Amino acid sequence: MRDPGNIAVIGVTGYTGFELATLLLRHPAIATPAFYVRESNGFQCLSQLFPQLRARREAPLRPLSLDAITSSAAGTAFLATPHEVSAELVPTLLDAGLRVIDLSGAFRFSTAETFTHWYKLPVPHASRLGEAVYGLPELYADRIPKAKLVANPGCYATSVILALKPLAEAGILSPTQNVICDCKSGASGAGKDPRRDLHFVEVDENFRAYSLFSHRHTPEILDHTGLPQSQVIFTTHLLPVARGILSTIYVTLATKHAPESIEELYHRYFAGKPLVRIWPAGELPELQHVTNTNFCDIGFTLDSDGQRLIVISCLDNLGKGAAGQAIQNLNLMLGLEEQTGLL
Amino acid sequence: MRDPGNIAVIGVTGYTGFELATLLLRHPAIATPAFYVRESNGFQCLSQLFPQLRARREAPLRPLSLDAITSSAAGTAFLATPHEVSAELVPTLLDAGLRVIDLSGAFRFSTAETFTHWYKLPVPHASRLGEAVYGLPELYADRIPKAKLVANPGCYATSVILALKPLAEAGILSPTQNVICDCKSGASGAGKDPRRDLHFVEVDENFRAYSLFSHRHTPEILDHTGLPQSQVIFTTHLLPVARGILSTIYVTLATKHAPESIEELYHRYFAGKPLVRIWPAGELPELQHVTNTNFCDIGFTLDSDGQRLIVISCLDNLGKGAAGQAIQNLNLMLGLEEQTGLL
Amino acid sequence: MRDPGNIAVIGVTGYTGFELATLLLRHPAIATPAFYVRESNGFQCLSQLFPQLRARREAPLRPLSLDAITSSAAGTAFLATPHEVSAELVPTLLDAGLRVIDLSGAFRFSTAETFTHWYKLPVPHASRLGEAVYGLPELYADRIPKAKLVANPGCYATSVILALKPLAEAGILSPTQNVICDCKSGASGAGKDPRRDLHFVEVDENFRAYSLFSHRHTPEILDHTGLPQSQVIFTTHLLPVARGILSTIYVTLATKHAPESIEELYHRYFAGKPLVRIWPAGELPELQHVTNTNFCDIGFTLDSDGQRLIVISCLDNLGKGAAGQAIQNLNLMLGLEEQTGLL
Amino acid sequence: MRDPGNIAVIGVTGYTGFELATLLLRHPAIATPAFYVRESNGFQCLSQLFPQLRARREAPLRPLSLDAITSSAAGTAFLATPHEVSAELVPTLLDAGLRVIDLSGAFRFSTAETFTHWYKLPVPHASRLGEAVYGLPELYADRIPKAKLVANPGCYATSVILALKPLAEAGILSPTQNVICDCKSGASGAGKDPRRDLHFVEVDENFRAYSLFSHRHTPEILDHTGLPQSQVIFTTHLLPVARGILSTIYVTLATKHAPESIEELYHRYFAGKPLVRIWPAGELPELQHVTNTNFCDIGFTLDSDGQRLIVISCLDNLGKGAAGQAIQNLNLMLGLEEQTGLL
Repeated sequence: MRDPGNIAVIGVTGYTGFELATLLLRHPAIATPAFYVRESNGFQCLSQLFPQLRARREAPLRPLSLDAITSSAAGTAFLATPHEVSAELVPTLLDAGLRVIDLSGAFRFSTAETFTHWYKLPVPHASRLGEAVYGLPELYADRIPKAKLVANPGCYATSVILALKPLAEAGILSPTQNVICDCKSGASGAGKDPRRDLHFVEVDENFRAYSLFSHRHTPEILDHTGLPQSQVIFTTHLLPVARGILSTIYVTLATKHAPESIEELYHRYFAGKPLVRIWPAGELPELQHVTNTNFCDIGFTLDSDGQRLIVISCLDNLGKGAAGQAIQNLNLMLGLEEQTGLL
Repeated sequence: MRDPGNIAVIGVTGYTGFELATLLLRHPAIATPAFYVRESNGFQCLSQLFPQLRARREAPLRPLSLDAITSSAAGTAFLATPHEVSAELVPTLLDAGLRVIDLSGAFRFSTAETFTHWYKLPVPHASRLGEAVYGLPELYADRIPKAKLVANPGCYATSVILALKPLAEAGILSPTQNVICDCKSGASGAGKDPRRDLHFVEVDENFRAYSLFSHRHTPEILDHTGLPQSQVIFTTHLLPVARGILSTIYVTLATKHAPESIEELYHRYFAGKPLVRIWPAGELPELQHVTNTNFCDIGFTLDSDGQRLIVISCLDNLGKGAAGQAIQNLNLMLGLEEQTGLL
Repeated sequence: MRDPGNIAVIGVTGYTGFELATLLLRHPAIATPAFYVRESNGFQCLSQLFPQLRARREAPLRPLSLDAITSSAAGTAFLATPHEVSAELVPTLLDAGLRVIDLSGAFRFSTAETFTHWYKLPVPHASRLGEAVYGLPELYADRIPKAKLVANPGCYATSVILALKPLAEAGILSPTQNVICDCKSGASGAGKDPRRDLHFVEVDENFRAYSLFSHRHTPEILDHTGLPQSQVIFTTHLLPVARGILSTIYVTLATKHAPESIEELYHRYFAGKPLVRIWPAGELPELQHVTNTNFCDIGFTLDSDGQRLIVISCLDNLGKGAAGQAIQNLNLMLGLEEQTGLL
Repeated sequence: MRDPGNIAVIGVTGYTGFELATLLLRHPAIATPAFYVRESNGFQCLSQLFPQLRARREAPLRPLSLDAITSSAAGTAFLATPHEVSAELVPTLLDAGLRVIDLSGAFRFSTAETFTHWYKLPVPHASRLGEAVYGLPELYADRIPKAKLVANPGCYATSVILALKPLAEAGILSPTQNVICDCKSGASGAGKDPRRDLHFVEVDENFRAYSLFSHRHTPEILDHTGLPQSQVIFTTHLLPVARGILSTIYVTLATKHAPESIEELYHRYFAGKPLVRIWPAGELPELQHVTNTNFCDIGFTLDSDGQRLIVISCLDNLGKGAAGQAIQNLNLMLGLEEQTGLL
């Protein structure tokens, strides 16, 4: 009999895996998870992989075996694995009766075409895509608690959707002006594998734009804001910092508004949502306010014309942008308060 | 009799002053300038102020005296002083027959109202504003050689105007879509005076937007692109790097274009301009390509719709954004090739 | 009647104050402290001062009033104030029956001469110096639980003493070879006040030594290792990082040893001490293993000659080097496990 | 007929190669070198590899061919290649009559045993080791001008030897106290190849010691200071900066000295040496004073005991620590002033 609070984690060697392990091991309402890795490199336990955990949080590392997982009592599995690995493993886990929270992009879209177009990867089990709930709790708290499969959102997408959705849903955006999402991220968002363009010397004292008009998080933004592709421009840049995303989002309102009404609109949309913090009109969050937290902070400045609005949305790409949000989804699935273990 | 190649420099203690001194002292066509400082703090020569110059470039520091300058043979004065100091000093220098290159904002606008509105400072000699030529050589090479007073442009403004002017002048911009200038700068742009928000710990691993809808460089951008204020949004951010500006600029073209035609348009506009480098369509400059240079690099990506265009413009805020551009202006005023001493 | 678990905190605006507030507000065994500030700058509560705390940990800020504190039920006071402020305030608090944990240097020495010599400050209440216990729990866990006044150690001193004391006490150091402590710290150790030499541009991509033969933490190191001043050289450097200290310590052993015996010696000395982590012989801790933790990590490499030993000791200057250690002292004073709230 | 001023450069894709190319292309006394690369990756010219060079300095890239080089008029070859590549190529170039400046470690030692012991690599042409002159111009300016093969020193070794040699040669060091060289370097010193431990996230906000008692530059330091291995401890650390080395060196003088006599000793030793800058007693150079220069800066503080001396020696690992020094050697070989093109 599966226990949903009995957790298996697959993939723990990357930056997201580390963050996930750290959050799970200090979570007040769940027991120590079982951690599985595809390549152990001889490491026996978490603190050998991450010495900062020594004498704080500890657990053995096990070689990945789907048999071992499905024959255990584990009720929920996290996958912090590459897209193609998740695409392959998830159906087997679902079929064995586990609930799955997948941090990759493999199940974020309803059609195989979308995934293949943006990720340039095949979809081995296309029929299973429809089973996933997009794990953005501020939008889908009604569906996540009963989901069998949660597709944890992309980090950039989380930052942008949370800023835009309240405006889009309120119907106050000018339909003719472009929505510009100028986003900047720290280097942990690019993963831990060595790459020449992630060498310290290539990032330090540098700043660059990348993936213009082609970033993989684009379809998530379109799907969950409901805005048309022709209206949205989403651009990403690499900051010389380890972690954090700050998105500067430019929209035009169809009619004049007062700053207070925008502030109220955001407060109303996120009422009762503990992990989104709305800043007072005219005050702006900075990256340092969210790094090492699980919040998304949203602030804005409205032009004196009452229509041109700049929204600043920031979060920690490893926190609310990945592992923190995954735990938030777990909390909802377990019937806990969503911020449990995340403050 | 004044010799225009006989140079006086007022204000050399800041980051711009240091860059200016370094460039002047290695310039192949001019003699060692006379350097004047308002407060010497007991320093007798440049290398006491900047030990990195020891055994390389050297000159005495003199206490600032307008009498000393005007009674010397100096023909050209650089001012790397605060706005209010330049506003006060420049007319006296002009009246004494010196040509002036002012790196502050004091003479960048034709009306006192504009300056006072954006800088919150009085204008002591409003009637002299009209004497200045805006020192952007790629636009005003016809007027700079004979100018008595050159107002050296703002760093952000230089980056934005060089990217936008060719498009605006070609008349290909959609008049109804906003032009978004999302700009990011290193901390030397904020000056050298100690400030809590420039403490290492407040900038390191941080990133923040500032001066939304209110940055002082806005009127320069409007004046020299000719775009209406209602169409332009200009936003600035602080990067955790010492130097460099990268501007991500979003425009919409009125009709479909091919990338090649945009590339050609830029090449045509900057033909014969040695300090602007146009990148091939789809290749983008990074901050590291321009730091410690006097170039402005411009690259772009055109959406597959042929209309949505993202331009990346970057430069070193102390180079092409300040001291390098000031020397470029000097070169034009002296009849030298404009890149002399700047490659 | 005073309750030692009822906490007053004086001084919370600096980096150490912030860390202290954060740790206290998430401490599982104490109620929300009362926070007092000398200058409120209009801030009413902690999260206005530190927006990263919003929706996480909160408390009102009160204007500093010794009367208010001494007439409250507070049983323990933390002072995260400048040396001269602590020197003035502490006796009043002690006389009113509070127990005090002072994070400044004011009470770290038994004689006024030592303090005045190294800090260039007068000692207003010299007779009270003798009342303090030096708050290094790994050395003085016997005295701290009953102390009325705990002088919380310096950050560098903690790192050096923990590495050296086990060797010194074991009597295995050559008495004729110098003990070299080459220490490097992040910029938060220098405090939050704006200073030209702490401007981002002056620290970024830079590295410098400072206070050679004259750093204030020297007498703490001598007092608590028992080594003579003539044998110890202690040097400090500023790293371009926000937080963390790494000390590279060079000693010579009087006779040949095996690495295993050194490792065992450290393990024995720190047996039962939860906040010191000894690394296996030949493996070395890095700054990243201790930042944002309350540990001191110690590793070493012994030369093949069996006598020349390099010890690497690192900690977070705001954690085990300041606020974390202050909480550790509080825990001992309250009869709690010393790592409570610190893992 | 070979022309020594006709230069071939082998290996230009790394950080040292880039620095070397930049310096050579702006050198006032030599023609554009021929650049050869082992793998062109499709690049036809330098500015494709290094876009920052566009419109400044340019040269074609040629596929490496020893035949092409030896059959050209090239008189001098630089090798900025891996140790094992230099070890293999250099003898052929020498035999063809070229003079060689090798920036690798392959020819820095007189015996194959030393090289193999420290570098864990074979020596294919052991008999040729004796032909090399160690290219430290401040020590060997008498031999370099006529050298056929110059082994360009290691970056750390340069910094340490220049600080220690004047003291060692003066015979004022206590023979019984250890000489401790605690050195810190930026990440470009580790080369450009992607490595997990050089990923931005692993260096940023981090600091670590490495290669204790085993760094490859150790034998250079011993050979050229003349100090015994038993007396010297040389330790290296990785700084979170792109470039620069700062060495903190601890020595004990056999008898009491005044600071002035130490300063004079250094001045005397380096009289007429334009690329070493001695700081006044008690003033210390910082990394920022030497980055992007070709100087080695040396400062010191003498303890009030007159015997314990701390010397700070810093340089740019790509400048005086590698490419700048290689050019300095070239200048001597060509009969030019040694600082030509290096200020």
